[in-house]
Amino acid sequence: MTKAWLGIDLGGTNTKVGLVGESGLLKRERFATRADQGTGPWLRSLCEAVEKLGGQGPRPAAVGVASPGVLQRPEGVVLRSPNLPAWNGFPLAREAGKALGLKAVVENDANCYALGEHHFGAGQGRDMACFTLGTGVGGGLIIGGRLVIGPLGTGGELGHTLAISGGRPCGCGAKGCVESYASATGLLGMLHEALDAGRETGLNRDSQVTDLAKAAHAGDELAQELFDRAGRALGAAFANVVTFTGLDLIIIGGGVAHAWPLMTAAAAAALGERLHLVKPERVDIRLAQLGDDAPLLGAAAFARDI
Amino acid sequence: MTKAWLGIDLGGTNTKVGLVGESGLLKRERFATRADQGTGPWLRSLCEAVEKLGGQGPRPAAVGVASPGVLQRPEGVVLRSPNLPAWNGFPLAREAGKALGLKAVVENDANCYALGEHHFGAGQGRDMACFTLGTGVGGGLIIGGRLVIGPLGTGGELGHTLAISGGRPCGCGAKGCVESYASATGLLGMLHEALDAGRETGLNRDSQVTDLAKAAHAGDELAQELFDRAGRALGAAFANVVTFTGLDLIIIGGGVAHAWPLMTAAAAAALGERLHLVKPERVDIRLAQLGDDAPLLGAAAFARDI
Repeated sequence: MTKAWLGIDLGGTNTKVGLVGESGLLKRERFATRADQGTGPWLRSLCEAVEKLGGQGPRPAAVGVASPGVLQRPEGVVLRSPNLPAWNGFPLAREAGKALGLKAVVENDANCYALGEHHFGAGQGRDMACFTLGTGVGGGLIIGGRLVIGPLGTGGELGHTLAISGGRPCGCGAKGCVESYASATGLLGMLHEALDAGRETGLNRDSQVTDLAKAAHAGDELAQELFDRAGRALGAAFANVVTFTGLDLIIIGGGVAHAWPLMTAAAAAALGERLHLVKPERVDIRLAQLGDDAPLLGAAAFARDI
Repeated sequence: MTKAWLGIDLGGTNTKVGLVGESGLLKRERFATRADQGTGPWLRSLCEAVEKLGGQGPRPAAVGVASPGVLQRPEGVVLRSPNLPAWNGFPLAREAGKALGLKAVVENDANCYALGEHHFGAGQGRDMACFTLGTGVGGGLIIGGRLVIGPLGTGGELGHTLAISGGRPCGCGAKGCVESYASATGLLGMLHEALDAGRETGLNRDSQVTDLAKAAHAGDELAQELFDRAGRALGAAFANVVTFTGLDLIIIGGGVAHAWPLMTAAAAAALGERLHLVKPERVDIRLAQLGDDAPLLGAAAFARDI
């Protein structure tokens, strides 16, 4: 009989549940997370979704949950989750496991994204570093086929490596992290600063990253400059990760990655300036392939490998 | 019968050979490398040294060589070694193995230093990052009990992580690497720049790092400032490594590490500025314990674990 695992992607708006086999996603369900109603109703909705999935197909061997926020490992407790305050302190692995009658594990969503791409997407099973460019910049580092998490639990937090000394303030409290340039927050923050400074542009305070990308493609100089700055920060971060790990594969995912072509040249230039131990061309930089399904698939792979 | 392995530390001036057991160094020999005479005489001297060692004690199961320069792995060929030009292209693992009649492996000296401290020194078997402050800044990263080397072979090159954007030129070709501040080359380079700029100090162009340290202890403001700059660069590098790996143990070794107390405060300040994902106090920063024996011991451990 085919083996399968459950993957859950707990998001602030929706929760996705997938039945995952050795070669990928078999079936998928989704339900509204309804963050304000807390964890009890969420567990009931989860069981319903899994029941719908389970009607056909192989019975899953274990369940993995991709969770936002700061986790207590290996227990799988959500310590702090800004977008899901009712989950703070919630023993997610234990409760999800109990509700579903399965062995359950929890890992953070960026790490699950990386695992998903590693096993089923652009990673093709190779060791890799994954940068997810979204509201922030998440990351995951896979060495020897396993996530690097570390005793402090910060392993793979690639968004907070130093890109520009004394640079823009980052949400984490430091200055000059790659996240403060190459995330939606970073790009729009730079836009607002430029608007405050009276820069000429077709963009305004309500512009989103997709507007920025359209403007850059249409020749708006400010928009192009902002993507250049994001690209340069990413290039510096890539050089750091290659120097530390010797990895030759970097995968770029997340919503802002749609604008990657606008950042490529600047990223390559910054990588070339910073990386001299090996030829920068040896670093293979690829776009992620799985889109929003990556965390779900990675969570299931994490449950399989545990 | 007790198990043992041979460790060899190939240096520009001397080569050290040690018989290493499960709990540490059993016996040690050394001979002049005589770099100008090439690899043939070196192999003969090696065999003599090993014969002296082998008269008593257990027969080694394998041999590990700590080599400077750039290596081709897993073959153990020395591709480029600035201080040992006659070794360029030398199939060190194969030839040393053949000469000694043992299975042989080669790893770079900074990685072996890290392995030595991991198994027998300050690392106590924990995963760790090791910075060796010498002529340059070397490094080694141990995750899951194994060296991180990576497909590009640059894993653990912690000396070339970004410390100061657009900072001092580094020997590698980049700017602002931690090596360009926290190595002997970096410290003395900064001294020479200050002398050129007419800074008042008791130091001069012939001063060495030990003179710098004495002057700093005696209150020389320039000397103190240079160690501060080195410390700040190290703190930024520590933050990068913790952010990437989640490691909670950093070990500082090498000749310049004797001046670590002069850099501690600045390193802690820079680490605190850059690291906000976890409390900086959770990062355990320790001095190495094995001194010059670390590469030898690490090379033997590498041979054991291969």
